[in-house]
Amino acid sequence: MNNRGKIYVVGIGPGNMEHMSLMALKAIENSQVVIGYKTYIELIKDLLHGKEVIDSGMKKEIERCNLTIDEAEKGKTVSIVSSGDPGIYGMAGVILELVNKRKSEVDVEIIPGISAANAAASSLGCPLMHDFAVISLSDLLTDWEVIKKRIKCAAEGDFIIALYNPKSKGRENQIVQARDIILKYRKSSTPVGIVKNAKRAKEKVVITDLENMLNHEIDMFTVVIIGNSNTYIDKGKIITPRGYKI
Amino acid sequence: MNNRGKIYVVGIGPGNMEHMSLMALKAIENSQVVIGYKTYIELIKDLLHGKEVIDSGMKKEIERCNLTIDEAEKGKTVSIVSSGDPGIYGMAGVILELVNKRKSEVDVEIIPGISAANAAASSLGCPLMHDFAVISLSDLLTDWEVIKKRIKCAAEGDFIIALYNPKSKGRENQIVQARDIILKYRKSSTPVGIVKNAKRAKEKVVITDLENMLNHEIDMFTVVIIGNSNTYIDKGKIITPRGYKI
Repeated sequence: MNNRGKIYVVGIGPGNMEHMSLMALKAIENSQVVIGYKTYIELIKDLLHGKEVIDSGMKKEIERCNLTIDEAEKGKTVSIVSSGDPGIYGMAGVILELVNKRKSEVDVEIIPGISAANAAASSLGCPLMHDFAVISLSDLLTDWEVIKKRIKCAAEGDFIIALYNPKSKGRENQIVQARDIILKYRKSSTPVGIVKNAKRAKEKVVITDLENMLNHEIDMFTVVIIGNSNTYIDKGKIITPRGYKI
Repeated sequence: MNNRGKIYVVGIGPGNMEHMSLMALKAIENSQVVIGYKTYIELIKDLLHGKEVIDSGMKKEIERCNLTIDEAEKGKTVSIVSSGDPGIYGMAGVILELVNKRKSEVDVEIIPGISAANAAASSLGCPLMHDFAVISLSDLLTDWEVIKKRIKCAAEGDFIIALYNPKSKGRENQIVQARDIILKYRKSSTPVGIVKNAKRAKEKVVITDLENMLNHEIDMFTVVIIGNSNTYIDKGKIITPRGYKI
């Protein structure tokens, strides 16, 4: 055990344990303390025997990260777990910012994971086979004007677009506006994939198009992937050609 | 064994085996035949005892995928392995396109992996903590004009930008042009991370800025990540704030 303490910021992947990396498993195995939002703690409970486990509610990111640093500063090895990849809208940022602000001497290692867009894509076919943009529609931390401009630029550049946090209770209009912006640049027949609970037990996959996408269930557990101008649907899969002569 | 045969398109993650998922391990374990570019076969050789292994050279993607389908059509279970995520500039696309073209009845399952941008980001700090665009600079399969427009749109939208295939022998000018385009929208002090062989034994991490990025080694094993207007460098890490009040 390092006297300075050690934090692993661990991506546990998109769903249940089978999409976690060996390195993520090893980090949790090496940790005395495991901290995370209770849904994620539940997903990895088989790994937690004999460990100190601290689960917390949502929207307590700063508190959870401060607690992680507190524990590590006692000289312990601590894993803070994030679903998907902690480097994509995850806990890596807050941990690094807080460690710097607190002038903490703890060692931080970020263990990447399979992120939600990659997981959703694999259930849809191969929609992300060309240049793509990832945009969160949550305006809790970002001005909606900035997000709208990004949607416009991504649509104009013919990027495949993966939307995180497309909709939640009390935030239902952003996905409607996003679609309107994209429709200025892309045909209404453009394929759209909607994946809820990607790679989890209750995964739900819908393949539709820009015209009809709003007729399907979209919520905060959903990733929405919108094809580029070459994307098509064949045998129930969304395919974006890379450009090979097939 | 399924009479129709089965193909797993397996992402082995960015580097050596420790970043592979349990699901990817299981798919290879369940396969009688494993096919891949020889560098990737070498990375997973410990998993291949008793299996039929077919390695192939680069730029033989179509041939490799046809061979995979041939083997599966004999009723075998076959893994074709890709580094990173097979759904991001990987083999998932060619397999699905060829299966459809050949009207093959084989079953295809895509196993996602940790892609190079995610891996590189984790070695740099947390550069991808906000909306980002992924662009390949290779113009082998895509018109350079299309790529240039995407770089412009991504820069204009203040996306963090991850560049795949930034440079190779005989294709050295694209990264220079890409930087010129981005400099029209972003300060020359914008942080840039250059990661060669992310998460492999010879990983090389450079943290620099738009002004100086071309003074460092960049090649086809490298991912280049360019920050957005809020990205900064602190204690040797690239940090893009998510927007929390820290």
